[in-house]
Amino acid sequence: MKVVKFGGSSLASAAQLEKVLNIIKSDDSRRFVVVSAPGKRDDQDIKVTDALIKYYKSYISEKDVTADQTWIINRYRSIIDELGLGQGILEKITKAIIDLANLPIDNNDFLYDTFLAAGEDNNAKLVAEYFRKNDLPARYVHPKNAGITVTSEPGNARILPSSYDKLEELCDSDEVLVIPGFFGVTVDNQVCTFSRGGSDITGSIVAAGVKADLYENFTDVDGIFAAHPGVVHKPQSISELTYREMRELAYAGFSVLHDEALIPAYRGKIPLVIKNTNNPDHPGTKIVLKHTGATIPVIGISGDDDFVSINISKYLMNREVGFGRKVLQILEELNIRWEHIPTGIDDMSIILRGRELTPIKEQEIISQLTRKLEVDEVEIERDLSIIMIVGENMKNHIGVTAKAAEAFSKKHINLEMISQGSSEVSVMFVIKTEQEKAAVRALYQTFFETE
Amino acid sequence: MKVVKFGGSSLASAAQLEKVLNIIKSDDSRRFVVVSAPGKRDDQDIKVTDALIKYYKSYISEKDVTADQTWIINRYRSIIDELGLGQGILEKITKAIIDLANLPIDNNDFLYDTFLAAGEDNNAKLVAEYFRKNDLPARYVHPKNAGITVTSEPGNARILPSSYDKLEELCDSDEVLVIPGFFGVTVDNQVCTFSRGGSDITGSIVAAGVKADLYENFTDVDGIFAAHPGVVHKPQSISELTYREMRELAYAGFSVLHDEALIPAYRGKIPLVIKNTNNPDHPGTKIVLKHTGATIPVIGISGDDDFVSINISKYLMNREVGFGRKVLQILEELNIRWEHIPTGIDDMSIILRGRELTPIKEQEIISQLTRKLEVDEVEIERDLSIIMIVGENMKNHIGVTAKAAEAFSKKHINLEMISQGSSEVSVMFVIKTEQEKAAVRALYQTFFETE
Repeated sequence: MKVVKFGGSSLASAAQLEKVLNIIKSDDSRRFVVVSAPGKRDDQDIKVTDALIKYYKSYISEKDVTADQTWIINRYRSIIDELGLGQGILEKITKAIIDLANLPIDNNDFLYDTFLAAGEDNNAKLVAEYFRKNDLPARYVHPKNAGITVTSEPGNARILPSSYDKLEELCDSDEVLVIPGFFGVTVDNQVCTFSRGGSDITGSIVAAGVKADLYENFTDVDGIFAAHPGVVHKPQSISELTYREMRELAYAGFSVLHDEALIPAYRGKIPLVIKNTNNPDHPGTKIVLKHTGATIPVIGISGDDDFVSINISKYLMNREVGFGRKVLQILEELNIRWEHIPTGIDDMSIILRGRELTPIKEQEIISQLTRKLEVDEVEIERDLSIIMIVGENMKNHIGVTAKAAEAFSKKHINLEMISQGSSEVSVMFVIKTEQEKAAVRALYQTFFETE
Repeated sequence: MKVVKFGGSSLASAAQLEKVLNIIKSDDSRRFVVVSAPGKRDDQDIKVTDALIKYYKSYISEKDVTADQTWIINRYRSIIDELGLGQGILEKITKAIIDLANLPIDNNDFLYDTFLAAGEDNNAKLVAEYFRKNDLPARYVHPKNAGITVTSEPGNARILPSSYDKLEELCDSDEVLVIPGFFGVTVDNQVCTFSRGGSDITGSIVAAGVKADLYENFTDVDGIFAAHPGVVHKPQSISELTYREMRELAYAGFSVLHDEALIPAYRGKIPLVIKNTNNPDHPGTKIVLKHTGATIPVIGISGDDDFVSINISKYLMNREVGFGRKVLQILEELNIRWEHIPTGIDDMSIILRGRELTPIKEQEIISQLTRKLEVDEVEIERDLSIIMIVGENMKNHIGVTAKAAEAFSKKHINLEMISQGSSEVSVMFVIKTEQEKAAVRALYQTFFETE
């Protein structure tokens, strides 16, 4: 049994929806379909979700909303007409869109969420109708009826653990169930949306709830590449990736699925595959708990910029009990999130994302380190990038770090810092941002082109 | 102007003292001589300091102390006789040794320190007398008169900052001043000893006080070797080392001078040289604030065992503000000193010295990490060694880490962890202790034998 999620670009037009229908029809075990709102058809297009935001803004500022409503309704209408669906579904969607402008504005914490969620919700109705018209028994299920009960945090809903039992009951259905992504319902029956990566989260939750054998996440790419295609020319795609490797790659620049979307599937031990709606025969990238066979040592190379290093030195620092903890306390009190703390003997660096260190916080840190901890020197180093080589199988290959370091050395790339932890799932290099692309290319050449 | 310190083996016999005299006579600028107590003449011998400890124990347990006194007096007598010094000095030393047994036992926090310090104190008198008899104008100076005023912490005295001004007055003397090492005097006129590395500390303090051009520390080795002679066959000796490099090397196994002994000289910006009394023409190893010329990238390789790693993993650890600080807080509350914290994305290791982690503390840490921080996994890894390559000039040489990692890889040595901090004074490798010697040899070969 499979849960299949389609992103906005897979649902943007009749032509795309035909591909979706064929994908579902081609495999009987695809029983649950989670849908996004219609995405852009081309670069000039507007996403339905963005049109809903505009509609919401007009409504709360008490402007005339007719044009906003019309644009959204017409967007659905064009898909309905192209697909040759009946007037019934268009009337339903039209009513739902117009009814939004009857919701109370005052004391309504969930108004914005309800507007936004309409994109997915109405698309799910449309998709279910389209399936039925094409001899695929299907049924639209509202998250309330599916059992997707969430916390009352507008824009940042979290699933309640009790939901999973209710979700499991969905398995009893003979029809394909079409569920709108991106939102759940609170115990008070309010529509409440997930954070970034919303529809992916819904798919992940449904997969965990129905104990799916596989969660298929259809996008518009053939899976995940071993390096960024904007940096490396035609990089290989990765056939199998563990959740852990995915997290490590995502950390430094890879952004196919949002972390939070992975948690329910990870916890439920559901494997996930990222596939391409436009090329469904491509096996895509499978994300698994454990690798199934022997793999190459390095599975992917990622790079991300805008890191900063706070370099601290103090003679005999290493004799001072609690020194490191005090440094981290200062950061915590300033609400600064750090990433890594490579330490020498009398020196310590704190690596953090550039956005964490505003000029005011920078001054405050320098002042506190100097005053409270009496450090000899503090230096702020900006414009750093983190490059990571990732692969769970690295630990079985001696010399991976040596090869990586040699690749840098040959290209005259200076390693500001290097850190390989005990997990041996990744090795992290800190370099100057100006050398980031050269570094990724050098590593790609070493680990993917010569083997 | 130079301050010269001699260790116990340089002062153990008349033959050794002749070398000392020649060293002082050969250079007019050697104006201050700091001496240890007479050391062992051979492997079977007893150090005067150890004989004093025995004497102290007999005295406080109210046993007959005659034998203890006689042994110590005879030890000085044999040197005095061999050197042909007069009875005057022997009588002075005899009286000083016997008088120890007249000191009050009760409510005397400084009794042990006073016994111990007698080894250095009487030796300074002897050395001054010997110098004078050999046409070298010299004078014994008690630390009280020198101005070495210290805190009232028996066995762990620390110099009072005000001492330095008084010490500077010593410069006015025309004679060579002979000062006993290892102890100072409290404001209440009590003898109070320094901790480990005591005479080295005195030398360092005097050098800083008189603003010496050089602090010469005479031992029985030709300086510091680039790697441990027990591991590498006939390693090169290092001609010049910065304080910083010295600290980094000392961290992982090098132990020529004790850290604390370096501080006054370091703060006073006094260069230091480690030389061999038995081979004074050898230039030895100079310890400086900054390198004077171009140097090789790696100046020394050290290795130390008995490290432990606590490996923690928790899914999405890296999203949790304050996680690292909480881990360090737990360690601090258990009074455990950590060394390094290499971090991955969802994992973190804490590297510490094995002695810090008693079985009880180990259980407590595992329990607290699991209970308070809800980690997914904690694993304790023992029998680890830290290998360090050290050199301030590494930062100007791209590829040092690559060469080191390659050297390990060729010898099939698996890197458990690797860390290169922003200072680039050292790169640290964590490996299994069983591979420590092979690792040091591989690095020595790479950085010292092929260049």
